[in-house]
Amino acid sequence: MISLGIDPGTIRTGWGVVRRDGSRIVRIDSGVIHLDEHTAIEDRLVVLHDRLNEILLSTGPDEAAVENLFFAKNASSALKLGHARGVILLCLRRHGLPVASYQPTEVKRALIGAGRAEKGQIQRVLEIILKTGRALEADEADALAVAVCHANGAGLRRPGNPLSHSHER
Amino acid sequence: MISLGIDPGTIRTGWGVVRRDGSRIVRIDSGVIHLDEHTAIEDRLVVLHDRLNEILLSTGPDEAAVENLFFAKNASSALKLGHARGVILLCLRRHGLPVASYQPTEVKRALIGAGRAEKGQIQRVLEIILKTGRALEADEADALAVAVCHANGAGLRRPGNPLSHSHER
Repeated sequence: MISLGIDPGTIRTGWGVVRRDGSRIVRIDSGVIHLDEHTAIEDRLVVLHDRLNEILLSTGPDEAAVENLFFAKNASSALKLGHARGVILLCLRRHGLPVASYQPTEVKRALIGAGRAEKGQIQRVLEIILKTGRALEADEADALAVAVCHANGAGLRRPGNPLSHSHER
Repeated sequence: MISLGIDPGTIRTGWGVVRRDGSRIVRIDSGVIHLDEHTAIEDRLVVLHDRLNEILLSTGPDEAAVENLFFAKNASSALKLGHARGVILLCLRRHGLPVASYQPTEVKRALIGAGRAEKGQIQRVLEIILKTGRALEADEADALAVAVCHANGAGLRRPGNPLSHSHER
């Protein structure tokens, strides 16, 4: 089973693809889609969609998980983030992938046992677990954390969601 | 010049297409894309994208304008709205349309000379201006208001934007 994790953003979108081999999680590929903040949002969304499409075609995941965010700094930044997230969900669904959604605190709890992490902690833990052999970018690490969390069946353990992915309504 | 106006939403997205004939604005078509709020957001976004695509193909607008919203009730509703808005911007840009963006207050000011309107006021004014011969749905009226506002060159009169559409950054 190959899982894609995504940490959405209108300037940087992290992505990470992992495969579960028994109890081991192996990193297949990961990176950050960088968008030019000086271009119009609609042009950035086109680039985001095209890049994600290429990643889906080259890595062939079976399922996807996207970081959610209920508590943005303010409505304006939530709206912006929503633009990227909406385009990502559209692209994933077009590829027929089941899409799960996780709060940042859920991801951190699944990975390090606590809902909050110090700056750089998640990155370093993932560099060790996934034996990346190089430093991960922050958004790349966040995306890999979502992928690992999902690959480890976090969605299946949710109360009220014993057997299914947590689709958003 | 044919202008498409959109009032985005994850349950109802209003749309309206108008043509400017000299000083007269003529309604070409308008309606509401209804999405099933009981289905997952990613499935709704696929339907929204497909329906908007059909509308673009059948009405052939030259330019588009989308209602913006900086002051949502809260971050969660802004994020949801952003999902729909992002997919809409992507679809419009894929069709090569220049995309302008208006605040609800700008649209109302352009239409009735005041930034606030009583409930139903915009609908009734548009029914008269556009001679619809029928009552407009609220979201349909909001979308037509954006289209009329844009067709009347509201974007061109903006301070600091004397000649260009107001692209978002």
